[in-house]
Amino acid sequence: MARKQKNGHDPWARWRIATPGAPVSLASFDPAEKPLSSGNKADDRNRVDELAQELDALQNLFYADRRFKLLLVLQGLDTSGKDGTLRAVLGRMSPIGVRTVAWQAPTPVERAHDFLWRIHQQVPAAGEIVCFNRSHYEDVLVPVVTGQISGADKERRYAQINDFERLLVETGTVVLKFMLHISRREQRERLQERIDDPEKRWKFQRGDLDVRKQWDAYQLAYEQALAATATPWAPWTIVPADSKTHRNVMIALGLRDTMRSLDLHYPDEDPLLRDLKVE
Amino acid sequence: MARKQKNGHDPWARWRIATPGAPVSLASFDPAEKPLSSGNKADDRNRVDELAQELDALQNLFYADRRFKLLLVLQGLDTSGKDGTLRAVLGRMSPIGVRTVAWQAPTPVERAHDFLWRIHQQVPAAGEIVCFNRSHYEDVLVPVVTGQISGADKERRYAQINDFERLLVETGTVVLKFMLHISRREQRERLQERIDDPEKRWKFQRGDLDVRKQWDAYQLAYEQALAATATPWAPWTIVPADSKTHRNVMIALGLRDTMRSLDLHYPDEDPLLRDLKVE
Repeated sequence: MARKQKNGHDPWARWRIATPGAPVSLASFDPAEKPLSSGNKADDRNRVDELAQELDALQNLFYADRRFKLLLVLQGLDTSGKDGTLRAVLGRMSPIGVRTVAWQAPTPVERAHDFLWRIHQQVPAAGEIVCFNRSHYEDVLVPVVTGQISGADKERRYAQINDFERLLVETGTVVLKFMLHISRREQRERLQERIDDPEKRWKFQRGDLDVRKQWDAYQLAYEQALAATATPWAPWTIVPADSKTHRNVMIALGLRDTMRSLDLHYPDEDPLLRDLKVE
Repeated sequence: MARKQKNGHDPWARWRIATPGAPVSLASFDPAEKPLSSGNKADDRNRVDELAQELDALQNLFYADRRFKLLLVLQGLDTSGKDGTLRAVLGRMSPIGVRTVAWQAPTPVERAHDFLWRIHQQVPAAGEIVCFNRSHYEDVLVPVVTGQISGADKERRYAQINDFERLLVETGTVVLKFMLHISRREQRERLQERIDDPEKRWKFQRGDLDVRKQWDAYQLAYEQALAATATPWAPWTIVPADSKTHRNVMIALGLRDTMRSLDLHYPDEDPLLRDLKVE
């Protein structure tokens, strides 16, 4: 996913973290930054459309190739733009071979199993792209903020997640994890918009305001989770997400570069098929 | 889905069947007909794009509305255009709330259950659109052609399918079933193209030629299945599919008209939300 600019500067370097244990301070990542912007919003919008079309072609090839599985994890607080990213970045792909899973609070049956039980059932098959809208990371964010698990349990879950993701990677899955990072001020504006706009009101839940009150606790929980689970095999990218357009550029580019790097190709042809005539 | 033209002629009438037991003769449906075409291919293509965009907006509303579930069944012989329909008609929708299931031969575990067991697990939830690429109808087509079930078992399966689909409809699911009807000649051309085009060869399987040899048996099996399962609650539409563009127009229009007829709207607003200010 590394993209060097002409001057040798890598615009991704700061935003991509892959060293487990290295401390992460979200305050040092400005949600309003636009490291990959052209400087012109209209150009950036066109770039997203172009990338979405290229991603459609790459997905078609990915499906035919069948050597890989791709898991895209989108995490972020309410209104950080997970749904919007899905629409803008994956929205041009054929529904064949692309699947999204919107994770919600676990059901009683799911709670009666380990926290990765329901997750494992939904990981991508060969040739498939699956996008998690929220994910198993909620299980080391929500219970940490609400004080429902001990520090030892939390650490154990981080390790279990790392082991689980390594299993996926070792068995042919590319795991891309994006943390959509918005500012407290931007969230206020977006929540207010949901309340004020009759076409967006259905997305608003009163509980969203309670979660917002725990802003600092969530920032801390994210910092700890990112630091503990940014591994070489499944790195995190922190995406400054106050600008929706730039957020889309960054995620689409990350996904595009990763898919390009796989050297996808159509399966080797069966030489017996040559000159075969259908009757 | 009925659309009357100015002269009172309903272009759908002949292609839509909803009377269980009435005999169906596929020979009387010309796969090359274009009952909904403008007469100009470029215009028809633009129409598909426009409809795909309208469907995207309707799906967004369908998801917010949450009163309905929508099951789209695509059946048809190899190369009849199931994948292409999915791409053209559903390809603009956000992956949120849209899911496709490509059914293949049942696994040993699936075979150890009744034939609707695996199907039931994949039906749409409230607000969701699910498209079956092949479906439970394979279970009254394949074993009939290969002689693996008795006539009595076949009749029992038809009745079980009708009961199952009525359950779905009575619990809020809209069931739309499209049979993509191609000519034997068109299939030959498309299979040959798959063999000759390196980018399409991966879609070809040698078994496809064995199935093609059973053409007449499959036409008969389809006629019987259509006649037995064309119910008022889950009618079939036979789609002439030799023209890909017209096939897309017909299915997109059918889906669009059905979704429009649901009177979708955003959920009723919570009056307590008015004047709520986010802090």
